[in-house]
Amino acid sequence: MSTSVQPGQRAEVQYLLRVGDACLVLSHRISEWIGHSPVLEEDLALGNIALDLLGQARALLTRAGQLGEAPLDEDQLAYLREERHYLNPVMMELPRGDFAFTQARNLIAACWLLPLWTRLQASSDAEVAAIAAKAVKEVRYHQQHAAEWVVRLGDGSAESTRRMQDALQQLWPYVNELFAADAIDAAAEASGLGPAWSSLKPDWDAAMDEVLAEARLARPKDTPHVYAGVRGIHSEHMGHLLSTMQHLQRAYPGGVW
Amino acid sequence: MSTSVQPGQRAEVQYLLRVGDACLVLSHRISEWIGHSPVLEEDLALGNIALDLLGQARALLTRAGQLGEAPLDEDQLAYLREERHYLNPVMMELPRGDFAFTQARNLIAACWLLPLWTRLQASSDAEVAAIAAKAVKEVRYHQQHAAEWVVRLGDGSAESTRRMQDALQQLWPYVNELFAADAIDAAAEASGLGPAWSSLKPDWDAAMDEVLAEARLARPKDTPHVYAGVRGIHSEHMGHLLSTMQHLQRAYPGGVW
Repeated sequence: MSTSVQPGQRAEVQYLLRVGDACLVLSHRISEWIGHSPVLEEDLALGNIALDLLGQARALLTRAGQLGEAPLDEDQLAYLREERHYLNPVMMELPRGDFAFTQARNLIAACWLLPLWTRLQASSDAEVAAIAAKAVKEVRYHQQHAAEWVVRLGDGSAESTRRMQDALQQLWPYVNELFAADAIDAAAEASGLGPAWSSLKPDWDAAMDEVLAEARLARPKDTPHVYAGVRGIHSEHMGHLLSTMQHLQRAYPGGVW
Repeated sequence: MSTSVQPGQRAEVQYLLRVGDACLVLSHRISEWIGHSPVLEEDLALGNIALDLLGQARALLTRAGQLGEAPLDEDQLAYLREERHYLNPVMMELPRGDFAFTQARNLIAACWLLPLWTRLQASSDAEVAAIAAKAVKEVRYHQQHAAEWVVRLGDGSAESTRRMQDALQQLWPYVNELFAADAIDAAAEASGLGPAWSSLKPDWDAAMDEVLAEARLARPKDTPHVYAGVRGIHSEHMGHLLSTMQHLQRAYPGGVW
């Protein structure tokens, strides 16, 4: 298990890895709060959210590994790919930031994952549909939890409002990658594996606008689309994240130290 | 919430903090594995165990805070005490070590917590009894999970056997603190709040010996009792752990950044 693995070029594998890697990498960033949260209740909540996402990632990576040219298991896919073969949107790999940033990203991600999982319940792949049926319940809670924090901080003190507005501003340039169309995406829609991501935008807009209005926060202006994590082009932060996540497998191939 | 709090001298508070802090600090050490585990399945398992322990700690700290001379909430107790007012046994604060060390400590702790929670179900304090009824189910799984790893590694390769035997050797000097008697302990037994810790030893011995035999590991020799974390006397590692855990509350009193 020591050398790098390649997930291959099949469109269905790439589509599932985009979602699975989004969950895997976001889980990693959220889990960085465990033991560092400001209140015990939130430590537990963020911990549970991180573990839900990790469970979803594991299920999707397992399925993606079965569908590739050469079968791979979820651990090979999680730990032994090179950076350019991770297909998460760049937003998920950004450092955890402050508490406002974390909750704002969790809201953006949950408002995207909720319609995505909802439609994946009707996937032509029965395994994926079953994974989605479980995930949709989990992400509904994630969405509510993040929304409560965004409202509480956005409509809170001058300091908390400023921090939340800053967080949205920092995150917004990464939003449009979540809805970009390409051939992988079109193939998934055509085969019935899953929805084209662009079709998720109206649901996302409606859910976000509702929370932002309640939080009395301004919606940042949309920016041109520049990021391409879903094609393996990552930010400087991804290498650091992977070196942490992959350290044990790289140092002790096949071992558990 | 910025200044330090003191939990006071009442015996029942101290008794509950000893158990609650054991869960809190062990949870913190286990959670250091999240995102760093060698396999996804174990990342999830250790994450869930850490969150179970954190939930148990939160419940006990809440109860301890209600019983003190001056009421304190669980966050004040978790984040705003000084080191000498944390009453966990020293074993729980030792650095996470390698994977063998983590699983060996988890086994030792679970074999101790299982009879402790079992008897706390009959606590004269109804709140504590209710907390114990939930915790006992969780810790039974923790015990099984750690036992599986100790057997797998102990009866595994030459390298894994050596590492597991080393882990036991390192941990053993800290074991007898888990069964030491003093006035706090005697008061809890007398009032019916909870068992004297010394009474847990036969159950612990039996459970440990069974696992060690199956794992073909030698039981280390008992050593003189020297550690006194339950009286607030900690190792050099505790200060580092607390600075990580308390950082946000100390930097942003009452805030969430």
